Amino acid sequence: MRSSGTVDVAALVASARQGSPRAVARLITLVENEHPALPEIMAAMASLTGRAWVIGLTGSPGVGKSSTTTMLVRAFRGEGLRVGVLAVDPSSPFSGGALLGDRIRMVDHALDEGVYVRSMASRGHLGGLSAATPQALRVLDAAGCEVILVETVGVGQSEIEVAGLADTTAVLLAPGMGDGVQAAKAGILEIGDVFVVNKADRDGADSTVRELRHMISLGDRTEPGTWRPSVVKTVALKAEGCEELVSALRKHYRHTSASGELRRRRVHRAEREVESIALARLRERMREMPNGASLPEVAERVADGEVDAYAGAQQVLDG
Amino acid sequence: MRSSGTVDVAALVASARQGSPRAVARLITLVENEHPALPEIMAAMASLTGRAWVIGLTGSPGVGKSSTTTMLVRAFRGEGLRVGVLAVDPSSPFSGGALLGDRIRMVDHALDEGVYVRSMASRGHLGGLSAATPQALRVLDAAGCEVILVETVGVGQSEIEVAGLADTTAVLLAPGMGDGVQAAKAGILEIGDVFVVNKADRDGADSTVRELRHMISLGDRTEPGTWRPSVVKTVALKAEGCEELVSALRKHYRHTSASGELRRRRVHRAEREVESIALARLRERMREMPNGASLPEVAERVADGEVDAYAGAQQVLDG
Repeated sequence: MRSSGTVDVAALVASARQGSPRAVARLITLVENEHPALPEIMAAMASLTGRAWVIGLTGSPGVGKSSTTTMLVRAFRGEGLRVGVLAVDPSSPFSGGALLGDRIRMVDHALDEGVYVRSMASRGHLGGLSAATPQALRVLDAAGCEVILVETVGVGQSEIEVAGLADTTAVLLAPGMGDGVQAAKAGILEIGDVFVVNKADRDGADSTVRELRHMISLGDRTEPGTWRPSVVKTVALKAEGCEELVSALRKHYRHTSASGELRRRRVHRAEREVESIALARLRERMREMPNGASLPEVAERVADGEVDAYAGAQQVLDG
Repeated sequence: MRSSGTVDVAALVASARQGSPRAVARLITLVENEHPALPEIMAAMASLTGRAWVIGLTGSPGVGKSSTTTMLVRAFRGEGLRVGVLAVDPSSPFSGGALLGDRIRMVDHALDEGVYVRSMASRGHLGGLSAATPQALRVLDAAGCEVILVETVGVGQSEIEVAGLADTTAVLLAPGMGDGVQAAKAGILEIGDVFVVNKADRDGADSTVRELRHMISLGDRTEPGTWRPSVVKTVALKAEGCEELVSALRKHYRHTSASGELRRRRVHRAEREVESIALARLRERMREMPNGASLPEVAERVADGEVDAYAGAQQVLDG
């Protein structure tokens, strides 16, 4: 797509807004490829964004993130909402990596005009979420998605990052998994707004729920007005517990909207996005400075003791 | 020290240059505390730097880094060279953390006017070397140290970072340590210019040497003119192998001086230093922009869809 030449940004954004899946897909591809038209695209979409409710779904492989996503897509579609799915989990069938059965089920949704399903091809070079993820969310938002589900695998940093991207974060666990609640201790407790014990028809579901409730009660989110994470049991493959889950998610959304927490999260998210774009731009600029002020040239003078590192940094900043 | 008010930078640098250990210590403290006078200090010292030969010493805890450092200090002092020691290893006796015996031995050196011994109080918040380390090196360099030994523990990132800071990197191993050459596989092979098998009077020293030589022979540093890492056996506590080690280190220094590799390393080092100062400065500036262009204010407008993240980043960059 890099060599695709000029992009008619206005036309593309207009047709994404009118519901063209092709236009949405094209825009996300431009985002992923860091196309030069990206600033123009984002400018054209800015006033259309800020409406979608972004729900993050995370958990270890095997807890049933894909079937839970499928269940939620059906539920929200059943209410007539437009839904976007962004899969940044390399093991997710939405990313094209796993069971055929799930993939076919998702093809059903993908054919439904009210659902955009998109996998992010690449993750960031540090193993976390791709830097393009927040911008892909904006595309889906601008295209009129009222709910966007972001599915990530709960490994390493990405579970923390998805919480940074989402308005509401659901952490999935399954009973009897060695890493179940134990893993939850390692950071997951802090990020979950709603905990989902999926595969709740298996042995041990109730004790996993109890453990979770106990750990939540030990947490320090006890100031008045703070959201207290809820715990829901589901069997996603049979759509059991779906209503309870949707209701718990919605309760979190309403609670944080009313308390101002939702806006704080969104401002914080925007802050990190703007900062990372600004720093990336400065990095580029430092290499391209004219008149001997580029970073490699300044570095030579610093190494030779002609200038100190602080003055060098100033030269690079000033150009 | 932050509240110490005005610093007479010119006088301080002059007296460090004349060999005052107090002035050197004071300057490094100012560096560590990120004193506002830092840019002025670095500017005053720039033309005095670039002369010291920086030798990095790294290895797992227990391989004998401190005794090797002690041995090398004696050897270089014996040649009449001025020596600096910078210990950024929290387990190092130079940092005040370990065996009394070693510490006393170092006090001997510290009383010798030709040796500056300094531990860096803090490591970086990411667990790596403190950002102040390169600047502390410049202080020792400007104070006339002809050789500076930087001791770091070979855990996680810091072994890689010390290689970035040093002109010559010595990786220490001991025979019969479970992690010996195995650990070397995990990155240490790439950074060592000289490998030191210390405690070579123990069983297994020769096989550790053979293993290392074998692994080096498998490495891809086979282009003509490239330095081929050497392997030296020492018993640092008895000063055995000292001459061989000093000679191997010096051979590396001469080789990289002649090939231009030394200068490339130094320029690369300066580049990373300048870049990190520039990025830190930009981060600060972004928070302090006037007229609604500060990052938090811009982030609010981005969250509200009034402006897109790219335009927001530009505002933050332009002020």
